[in-house]
Amino acid sequence: MPHHSLAPDPALNAARAVDGERLWQRLMEMASIGAIPGGGVCRQALSPEDIVARERLIGWAGQRGYRVAVDSIANLFIRRPGMIPTAPPVLVGRHMDSQPRGGRFDGIYGVLAGLAALEALDAAGIQTRHPVELVAWTNEEGGRFAPGAMGSMVFAGQRRLDDCLDAVDSAGVKFADALRETLNATPDAECRPLGFPVAGYLEAHIEQGPRLEAEGKPIGIVTGIQGARWFDVMVQGETGHAGTTPRALRRDALQAALDMIQALKGLMYDPSDTVRFTVGRFTVSPNSPNAIPERARFSVDFRHPDGRLLAEKGDAVAQVVRGAAGACEVNITETFHHDPCVFHPAVVAALGAASNRLQLPSLRLPSGAFHDALFLNDRCPTGMVFVPCEKGISHDVRENAEPGDLEAGARVLTAALASLAEQPPTIEER
Amino acid sequence: MPHHSLAPDPALNAARAVDGERLWQRLMEMASIGAIPGGGVCRQALSPEDIVARERLIGWAGQRGYRVAVDSIANLFIRRPGMIPTAPPVLVGRHMDSQPRGGRFDGIYGVLAGLAALEALDAAGIQTRHPVELVAWTNEEGGRFAPGAMGSMVFAGQRRLDDCLDAVDSAGVKFADALRETLNATPDAECRPLGFPVAGYLEAHIEQGPRLEAEGKPIGIVTGIQGARWFDVMVQGETGHAGTTPRALRRDALQAALDMIQALKGLMYDPSDTVRFTVGRFTVSPNSPNAIPERARFSVDFRHPDGRLLAEKGDAVAQVVRGAAGACEVNITETFHHDPCVFHPAVVAALGAASNRLQLPSLRLPSGAFHDALFLNDRCPTGMVFVPCEKGISHDVRENAEPGDLEAGARVLTAALASLAEQPPTIEER
Repeated sequence: MPHHSLAPDPALNAARAVDGERLWQRLMEMASIGAIPGGGVCRQALSPEDIVARERLIGWAGQRGYRVAVDSIANLFIRRPGMIPTAPPVLVGRHMDSQPRGGRFDGIYGVLAGLAALEALDAAGIQTRHPVELVAWTNEEGGRFAPGAMGSMVFAGQRRLDDCLDAVDSAGVKFADALRETLNATPDAECRPLGFPVAGYLEAHIEQGPRLEAEGKPIGIVTGIQGARWFDVMVQGETGHAGTTPRALRRDALQAALDMIQALKGLMYDPSDTVRFTVGRFTVSPNSPNAIPERARFSVDFRHPDGRLLAEKGDAVAQVVRGAAGACEVNITETFHHDPCVFHPAVVAALGAASNRLQLPSLRLPSGAFHDALFLNDRCPTGMVFVPCEKGISHDVRENAEPGDLEAGARVLTAALASLAEQPPTIEER
Repeated sequence: MPHHSLAPDPALNAARAVDGERLWQRLMEMASIGAIPGGGVCRQALSPEDIVARERLIGWAGQRGYRVAVDSIANLFIRRPGMIPTAPPVLVGRHMDSQPRGGRFDGIYGVLAGLAALEALDAAGIQTRHPVELVAWTNEEGGRFAPGAMGSMVFAGQRRLDDCLDAVDSAGVKFADALRETLNATPDAECRPLGFPVAGYLEAHIEQGPRLEAEGKPIGIVTGIQGARWFDVMVQGETGHAGTTPRALRRDALQAALDMIQALKGLMYDPSDTVRFTVGRFTVSPNSPNAIPERARFSVDFRHPDGRLLAEKGDAVAQVVRGAAGACEVNITETFHHDPCVFHPAVVAALGAASNRLQLPSLRLPSGAFHDALFLNDRCPTGMVFVPCEKGISHDVRENAEPGDLEAGARVLTAALASLAEQPPTIEER
């Protein structure tokens, strides 16, 4: 577990210089941009609210004299210079867009914790060898323009910008047009190329799960992102009158779908409770109380950190579903497949060391959700820190987190950032 | 099984005088009023299409010199006089309105078969003691103005007209206004009081179930209408991220709903396949592939011809559902309850005798669906005859029936009508 030339005291000093109160105030200020009833936020990618949030962030950066740059997909970069100007920067950040009925912390916390980290380095008077750049990735949520994580995917070269431009939102607005408006709103920003060299990447985020809260730990050191496979299952039966059709003559699509889900529960059963298996979407038609369902359609979201198990159980889904179809027909499509990713051990170690030195209890855990870090991980040493969120709820107006936990997460982020920017592990060391 | 003073030959003569070809042509002509793609019909209650259909029917009645009357809810009565003008009439008929995406036979077949019966009595030169009246009940389907069976319920005194007038359709039109327009369209019709004395009631209808088709029988002698109980089940869980929340910490409303339906399947299991148990409506929210369902809601439609069993299993629904709720909360509401009805044995016998004498194979069966007969049955000796429909499909554009079967049903209806109108059983005989 290499600690490189980490100078423990400056990093700890920087971590302790994090201004938790200002971080909270900024979170609440950002939450007012696109505020919706119930304490939530609607600040979708490239919307007027997103543009206002970008301007606010640029304003705070300007107060510190940080330079602002954008690339061609409007990823925003805010630079704190390093001792070696030509060295590739260490990035820290996340996204500012929200779900349509999202919360106050998802995404924006990572951005504001990153800004707090840059300011804490200032406050502690620390000069890093590498420049440090705060990044706000464009359209992580994908709620307005599908798919999500466009900004980080395009930056990391895993998707072409051209393949994003024709995405259209539900109001008929093209991604290309919304992107142009967003870029026009920051005319003073420098232009940066996509995929410039990067020395490392760090993200802070709410856990979006209940484990840290349940175990009473303020810090999660993220070891990687579990793999995921999504399926769309369409069941075709036959409708009929609920009062007249005998059971033996029915081809009830809902009952067949229930049998399929029951069978999948068997396939996915895991006493260790590591498998994540969710049927989140379920529709029937004609959806009338006295008509036998003719069609049923449901989603399967299956995730696991172990690639072998992800392959094994995921490959069995179609067969298990077909085996439970009874008299109905069924069509199964795999709509998404991402193998597990493992974060760079040096970054995981730097985050672990930071939380230990700050005496913040931590838990190592894989991320159940996707993050921009998933795509950066192929480009540079990457890692994430989690903080607890209430009941694990996210993507909902009830999303909540404690100021003290958010501050703790920003401190760990800052210490690890100071460590990586002093002498980050190179790509060759991985 | 009293056969009264049935004169077999005249009744058979009348039955044989039914003009099946004209019946079919009129069905197709009515199907063109409100025709929709796929071979279906949209002729909702009191709509312009309903008015056109009424005018067409009145036109055919006029060709025979039958007198036309309406009551205050626009039930239409077409009278063939009897030998005793003051005797209460025997009614025969059904409704002319359709489901919004309905078929060509539901309802209208009963009306046109009734007209064919009146004409066949003419053709056979039969004079009945009682007048015979063809009736077209208003708004049986309830698709435009809820609830259904308004016309027959109000006529039978089971609902007040005043309680119908404020019903509003999805376009904001009030029932009272649509009713006035419909009544204005038949200015020459006599006015009849609601609930005038009636000596008997007969209905012909497609089965809306698959039994006659499956058993190859053209005639169903309906013994009664099974009882029905409807429930609305609302399950409250907690949402969460599909990728992060361990199974042990989930309160997944969809999975709880599945367990409830599974438990209800156990309660409703019936090797004799007499129980009708349907979950036709099922919704979840937020209905997103990567969010654990917070709420699920489903309908239960349970029917049985045996009142004791309907009570026993129906009363157990709430407890069985609650027992499967796991960590979720559940709210169960009974939204509809109708005990089984048994048709008058003399009417059932008359229909059975008619099909036997016409050498038409028949099956005695309860009706799974509701009908206007359900409400008339409390007022007068009532009965129904069913004919097969393709795959049992109704309330759908694919609804289909064979001309030969429709003709056979009209013959049985005619013979039984002749028998009842000659000397119908009185209410005291029941």
